[in-house]
Amino acid sequence: MDLRLVSRLLGFVALFVGVAMAFSTPWALPPFGAAKRFETHGFFGLLGAIAVSLGTAAVLWRLGRGNKGKLYRKEAIAVVGLSWVLATILGAIPYLLSGTARGLDENGAPVRMNVADAIFEAQAGFSTTGSTVLTDLELPDLDDPERIPLVPRSILFWRASTQFLGGLGIIVLFVAVLGQGSAGKALMRTEMTGPTKEGTTARMQHTAQVFAGIYTGLNVALIALLLVQGVSLFDSLCHAFTTLSTGGFSTYNDSVGHFSSANGYNAPMIELTFIVFMILGGTNFALLYFVVVGQPRRLLANVEWRVYLAILFVATIVVAIAGRLTNDFDSTTESIRYSAFNVISVMTTTGFVTHDFNAWNNFARGTLFVLMFIGACAGSTAGGVKVIRPILLMKILWLEIEHAYRPSVVRPLRIGGEAVQDPDLRKNILLYFCLVLVIVVLAWLATIALEPDATWHKAELSSDHKLMDCAGAVAATMNTIGPGLGIVGATRTYADFTSASKLIFAFLMLVGRLELFAVLVLFMPRFWMKR
Amino acid sequence: MDLRLVSRLLGFVALFVGVAMAFSTPWALPPFGAAKRFETHGFFGLLGAIAVSLGTAAVLWRLGRGNKGKLYRKEAIAVVGLSWVLATILGAIPYLLSGTARGLDENGAPVRMNVADAIFEAQAGFSTTGSTVLTDLELPDLDDPERIPLVPRSILFWRASTQFLGGLGIIVLFVAVLGQGSAGKALMRTEMTGPTKEGTTARMQHTAQVFAGIYTGLNVALIALLLVQGVSLFDSLCHAFTTLSTGGFSTYNDSVGHFSSANGYNAPMIELTFIVFMILGGTNFALLYFVVVGQPRRLLANVEWRVYLAILFVATIVVAIAGRLTNDFDSTTESIRYSAFNVISVMTTTGFVTHDFNAWNNFARGTLFVLMFIGACAGSTAGGVKVIRPILLMKILWLEIEHAYRPSVVRPLRIGGEAVQDPDLRKNILLYFCLVLVIVVLAWLATIALEPDATWHKAELSSDHKLMDCAGAVAATMNTIGPGLGIVGATRTYADFTSASKLIFAFLMLVGRLELFAVLVLFMPRFWMKR
Repeated sequence: MDLRLVSRLLGFVALFVGVAMAFSTPWALPPFGAAKRFETHGFFGLLGAIAVSLGTAAVLWRLGRGNKGKLYRKEAIAVVGLSWVLATILGAIPYLLSGTARGLDENGAPVRMNVADAIFEAQAGFSTTGSTVLTDLELPDLDDPERIPLVPRSILFWRASTQFLGGLGIIVLFVAVLGQGSAGKALMRTEMTGPTKEGTTARMQHTAQVFAGIYTGLNVALIALLLVQGVSLFDSLCHAFTTLSTGGFSTYNDSVGHFSSANGYNAPMIELTFIVFMILGGTNFALLYFVVVGQPRRLLANVEWRVYLAILFVATIVVAIAGRLTNDFDSTTESIRYSAFNVISVMTTTGFVTHDFNAWNNFARGTLFVLMFIGACAGSTAGGVKVIRPILLMKILWLEIEHAYRPSVVRPLRIGGEAVQDPDLRKNILLYFCLVLVIVVLAWLATIALEPDATWHKAELSSDHKLMDCAGAVAATMNTIGPGLGIVGATRTYADFTSASKLIFAFLMLVGRLELFAVLVLFMPRFWMKR
Repeated sequence: MDLRLVSRLLGFVALFVGVAMAFSTPWALPPFGAAKRFETHGFFGLLGAIAVSLGTAAVLWRLGRGNKGKLYRKEAIAVVGLSWVLATILGAIPYLLSGTARGLDENGAPVRMNVADAIFEAQAGFSTTGSTVLTDLELPDLDDPERIPLVPRSILFWRASTQFLGGLGIIVLFVAVLGQGSAGKALMRTEMTGPTKEGTTARMQHTAQVFAGIYTGLNVALIALLLVQGVSLFDSLCHAFTTLSTGGFSTYNDSVGHFSSANGYNAPMIELTFIVFMILGGTNFALLYFVVVGQPRRLLANVEWRVYLAILFVATIVVAIAGRLTNDFDSTTESIRYSAFNVISVMTTTGFVTHDFNAWNNFARGTLFVLMFIGACAGSTAGGVKVIRPILLMKILWLEIEHAYRPSVVRPLRIGGEAVQDPDLRKNILLYFCLVLVIVVLAWLATIALEPDATWHKAELSSDHKLMDCAGAVAATMNTIGPGLGIVGATRTYADFTSASKLIFAFLMLVGRLELFAVLVLFMPRFWMKR
């Protein structure tokens, strides 16, 4: 393991984070229109965090002197895993230095975010999960006669920025550089056992640039569409950042529900705009590339993308019908409108909310719970296991059941009519689901053991819901959705949980985001030994 | 597919069931001490069912004329799967013909079991699950001044007999004949692709006889021990039948909790007796065979058995501590006593109850939920995935995480220090967990969709528990435990569920009992085609 090279590359990450933070500082200034008064805490909190980031970058760069410059598989994995950890730590600093309030205590005094809160919020950002511990984003400053918000706008901008950066990191690092774009990690594993060849590097750099360009282009398009519909520049930027990264942080307590007709917006149109861009955020970027270069048929013919749309469509209809029958909605139009938005928000692992889906009927809640695990397409910014894996799993199970009574018959696995050549594919797909299963079970047991029943009583809920609520929280963080069920449902936050649980959830977001292996290997002592 | 041979072998099953039913008839007669008055309904119900069984046997035998007499793999699988289905259908007839009451309606009138109830109860018997729809086993006959029980004793004996037969079927068919005894199906798959050779048949017949002998011997031993401790002959027989089969049907509403000090029994001693025999029921019969022939070290050195005992021990301690801390129990002695019995009852998939474990703290309930899926040892009468599979899964996951960064390193899978030679083992273990996962998710979604919230309201429970309760019911039936959590908790039954859900659960019991494949292949059209 060439730790020096790892250190040098992590130095770049720290530099990148520090520079990105600088873009949040202008929003502390009233001329930019987000802050009503100069946000002292937010501004200097960010400045301090920039200083720490740049200092860290310098130290890591220095430690990286004398590296051999050859990126082997192990180093690549270490860099990918550790860069998210480093970004999270640095990204948590603005929350702490600005003294942002998580909410109010029983006496009405602001409760500042502690280290676990800040780590949780930063990880929910970079992992594009969108879970939050901030109970009130619009809380007015209690000492201020002009009702200035207690959560600085500049900090909210940084919060949205972390999701933009997280999404960019996924697209560039995973999809472009590691070549998992065309049909998922399972199908196209780049062999990084040897040093990267010159030609490959150039091609990877080009792909990364193109994908980053598409990602940025889509963000710009959404910002423009939101501005046209009367959304402020600050809100347009923040919401675009958290839509295409399928993150789901909003600047309002009501999430996208804020853009209602009551607040003067053309709500159905804005929701439709978000729906289109959430679906795009959950689409394989390699396929979006083909659309850009004039081959839209590559997208339209893609099996995973078609199944992805089919599941979204069927789930919306089923949830709408169930919701209408159980009177969760007042009219058929509302049923379809709210089902579509929230089903798509959950399955694309965005996590925006326009209706309290936790209050829906149990069948709808159960369906959302399953959709959380499915997620969107491989090669997108979405989480979950990705649509291609359940497709392959069902095919594999079918083939293997036949194999149980006909051991001599070995049929190839086919996707879209073509036989898959990768001999390890079957094992890898099965392995992935088993790993998800084991992590979910262990995390669930840890959460129900560590989290006292008092958390539910404090939230005025019955602790009878604990088992399901913890399962919902594990699902919502590991699959990078954001809001879960029950105590962490659509209208609630993770603020009530203990620090121990918050750190477990932060770990799950990391594991889910990096598709398990890149994180889990970091915990193997043997991984760090010299080869 | 030689359907004639399948038909002939199923004829034997029908004959066997009919003959077994005859042993329940004496208990309808007062001289045998179980019934207070001649049980007309029970006696003639059984007689009618015997007639149907023997008639079915004759028809199937007749249809089987002209079979080629060669048992290929396909025929073997079809016979195994269908014999459970046939036994269930025939075994349900006594409940229907005797007009046994499921409970009382709101007016206090008995509600007779319908077809779904009878199928459910019969499947819970033959699959050795022990779930029940009978809400009151001790319900006195409303029209009778002498308070004769409404549920005939002879029917209760048949109910216990189905578990004895189910356990025997598993031991003989799966463990002895299909040779899954020594280290689980995954490790020792008998190749039945060709006709069975003379030598193999003789050896299999011998093994089957030996295993059936051990099973019967253990039953006799438990009966003797219970008689000595003052349990009636009827209760001793019924409880021994449902202990070694890890079934869990009792003849009392309070299950094994009936044998309390208040009722004049030495309760801790009786509970300890049950604990020992539940653990034996969950032990690999091939290992018990070695004990019988004087090689106990083969048992003591077995990795799966050691891990099985270790999990039982650790889970008992953990549940006892959690229960003591949360005041689920009144004293430390009680904590250990009740935790031990109910943890062992759940993990061996027996399902006897001495304490309402559904009322325990959430951590204990969550732990029981996970134990349900683990189950006991391969080659035993227990359900669940069996201890060996989670052991192998953890080893496989560890090896594969290393493989993720060192693709060139391929380490063999080791059990107890020895490398496993089966090249398909890794895939098969992963496959099994994925299949369990898919079936559980689909069954859970089906149950929450089909079962109305009104079921919970009728039981005076909040329908907020539906998602977790349905998961508990799926876990408790698929893993053949019996009682689950919430609405089907330790002190409740499955009576409130709709017929649709009951049939889903009956299917899950069958699937879980036969380890998935033997049932699922029956649903593949291609399976039934001629080769």
